[in-house]
Amino acid sequence: MGIFTKDIQSMDDLLVHGLQDIYYAEQQITKALPKMIDKATNRDLTTALKNHLGETNKQIERLDQAFTKLGQTPKGATCPAIDGLIKEADEVAGEISDKEVLDAAIVAAAQAVEHYEIARYGTLIAWAEALGHDDIVRFLNTNLNEEKAADTKLNTVALRKGVNRKAAS
Amino acid sequence: MGIFTKDIQSMDDLLVHGLQDIYYAEQQITKALPKMIDKATNRDLTTALKNHLGETNKQIERLDQAFTKLGQTPKGATCPAIDGLIKEADEVAGEISDKEVLDAAIVAAAQAVEHYEIARYGTLIAWAEALGHDDIVRFLNTNLNEEKAADTKLNTVALRKGVNRKAAS
Repeated sequence: MGIFTKDIQSMDDLLVHGLQDIYYAEQQITKALPKMIDKATNRDLTTALKNHLGETNKQIERLDQAFTKLGQTPKGATCPAIDGLIKEADEVAGEISDKEVLDAAIVAAAQAVEHYEIARYGTLIAWAEALGHDDIVRFLNTNLNEEKAADTKLNTVALRKGVNRKAAS
Repeated sequence: MGIFTKDIQSMDDLLVHGLQDIYYAEQQITKALPKMIDKATNRDLTTALKNHLGETNKQIERLDQAFTKLGQTPKGATCPAIDGLIKEADEVAGEISDKEVLDAAIVAAAQAVEHYEIARYGTLIAWAEALGHDDIVRFLNTNLNEEKAADTKLNTVALRKGVNRKAAS
């Protein structure tokens, strides 16, 4: 983005900027997830994170297709929000010595990231629909549904698979 | 947080840190919302943001009560996630000249913030329940429900009150 010019002049520009933002975010997530998987102890948690890493790579491919449908070259735009979310996750993890408490913190960090993506994909779908770009909506909807499912899975890991109970005991 | 010590040793410590994180976040939101209200043009959007500013001040009071119930002095801990979300909102807004496109971007920024809070309050409630701190759950639940309602209201503003349609036309 330029500093002295207003680069977003239309809703189409805003949609493309939003796609570049989530494209960068998904790429940062593919770098952050392996570190979270290394730190996690609970087997259900590591499985959920590994599955989501595989999904994230496919989500990036769907975003590639969305850019192409819009006649744009796929590229990312630095996204301070995801950078902040990942920085916060790293800082909190660095403060924790107990492995079970760390697992609970990792679930929380991953769910904060999921909710960021749920918000962004929800917005992008609404913008694409308003602009009549129905051809990219299905890619974005698939990504949104995967983020929601990943968030629900993390709820299960925290509540039914014992992560929170073990951390609190 | 200390740099050379691991300050979070138990799940109770993690809960208190989480409360300090959202306490800081809510305070930053009370500073960011007036700027978003100034930039917004659509009347339904400014009304929704003004109402949420009032709610946010009450949410901080509820967090004060939660700290007190836990025998803690209310204080914030710098939260890179909310700082990043607000920085991103400012940067995108600074790139937009068209007022109707700016309204759509403001809705998106506000919904990203709401989703951050929805994730955090959901986590804090689960942790408080696991630790048996039922006395703070109701404060956190009230805040969570307000964030969800604010997000739903912003959906209505974007989709039914014409913000996205006007921005796309």
